[in-house]
Amino acid sequence: MPFVTIELIEGRTEEQLKAMVAEVTEVVSRTTQAPKENIHVFVEELKKERYAVNGKLKSEE
Amino acid sequence: MPFVTIELIEGRTEEQLKAMVAEVTEVVSRTTQAPKENIHVFVEELKKERYAVNGKLKSEE
Amino acid sequence: MPFVTIELIEGRTEEQLKAMVAEVTEVVSRTTQAPKENIHVFVEELKKERYAVNGKLKSEE
Amino acid sequence: MPFVTIELIEGRTEEQLKAMVAEVTEVVSRTTQAPKENIHVFVEELKKERYAVNGKLKSEE
Amino acid sequence: MPFVTIELIEGRTEEQLKAMVAEVTEVVSRTTQAPKENIHVFVEELKKERYAVNGKLKSEE
Amino acid sequence: MPFVTIELIEGRTEEQLKAMVAEVTEVVSRTTQAPKENIHVFVEELKKERYAVNGKLKSEE
Repeated sequence: MPFVTIELIEGRTEEQLKAMVAEVTEVVSRTTQAPKENIHVFVEELKKERYAVNGKLKSEE
Repeated sequence: MPFVTIELIEGRTEEQLKAMVAEVTEVVSRTTQAPKENIHVFVEELKKERYAVNGKLKSEE
Repeated sequence: MPFVTIELIEGRTEEQLKAMVAEVTEVVSRTTQAPKENIHVFVEELKKERYAVNGKLKSEE
Repeated sequence: MPFVTIELIEGRTEEQLKAMVAEVTEVVSRTTQAPKENIHVFVEELKKERYAVNGKLKSEE
Repeated sequence: MPFVTIELIEGRTEEQLKAMVAEVTEVVSRTTQAPKENIHVFVEELKKERYAVNGKLKSEE
Repeated sequence: MPFVTIELIEGRTEEQLKAMVAEVTEVVSRTTQAPKENIHVFVEELKKERYAVNGKLKSEE
């Protein structure tokens, strides 16, 4: 605890995701005073054919 | 906002999913008065080997 | 199945939510050909002090 | 109802997952007195490159 | 890890929930061979006015 | 997009949560190059009577 789930559209590089989870863990730890080893981060990538805004799938745009 | 997540068993066609997200966006917008461009829809397909009812995976049936 | 989760900011009336779940069920059933009695809808209202866009809680705006 | 979601790191066998959903359904039914046929279980496997503890993805360890 | 989320309609007693989380932890540990101290269980109670089946909120029935 | 959900045990101050969402937004924007105004953060506080580790609710400890 805490648990952090980050949903984003597919397409980021492994390096970007690695930096993102490291830095998110850092700031959540600092602001909540939870030890970093208790912080879990889940990354969920959304496919363009399964995510819609304004009634239209991202794959249709 | 609003955010709508729809979980269903795999097997619908792309056309069905396309129609589903378009119509869901339409009725959520109409009933909540949120502008359509603020409505996000996420489609999550469940695999039969990872979804169980009555203690049995759908792939076992 | 299907399962539909709708997250929206608090403040809609009971009548709006009632209409929303009825109509969403209707269109999900029609577009996916799932019987209406199999469709579950969950409504989750977000509090303004627990939802942020652009780094700022809605309660701060 | 009830709905049970189980997230675990990838790597369990199909036999383990099958036993897990059967037994979880059993005890949830017994302790809540919900009939087993109303209990739905979703299994979500996390990939090592998408799950981090202590700021580090499991795939980096 | 694993993480287990259990959603059920409000109305169970504290004793029922206590037994449920204890027994679910037990069987998930046994079937997946994860140590019990790594298993987290989240209980989410659904309000009748926010959960619908067949297009109708449970509070309307 | 991205969408960030942070679950933590109840008990943080409003100031801590405010700082947490601001800083998480900042680093997610920087590492993914998503504009800050597209980043949504949801904070979910867990009650001690509804969250268990090792088979025991936090309220029992």
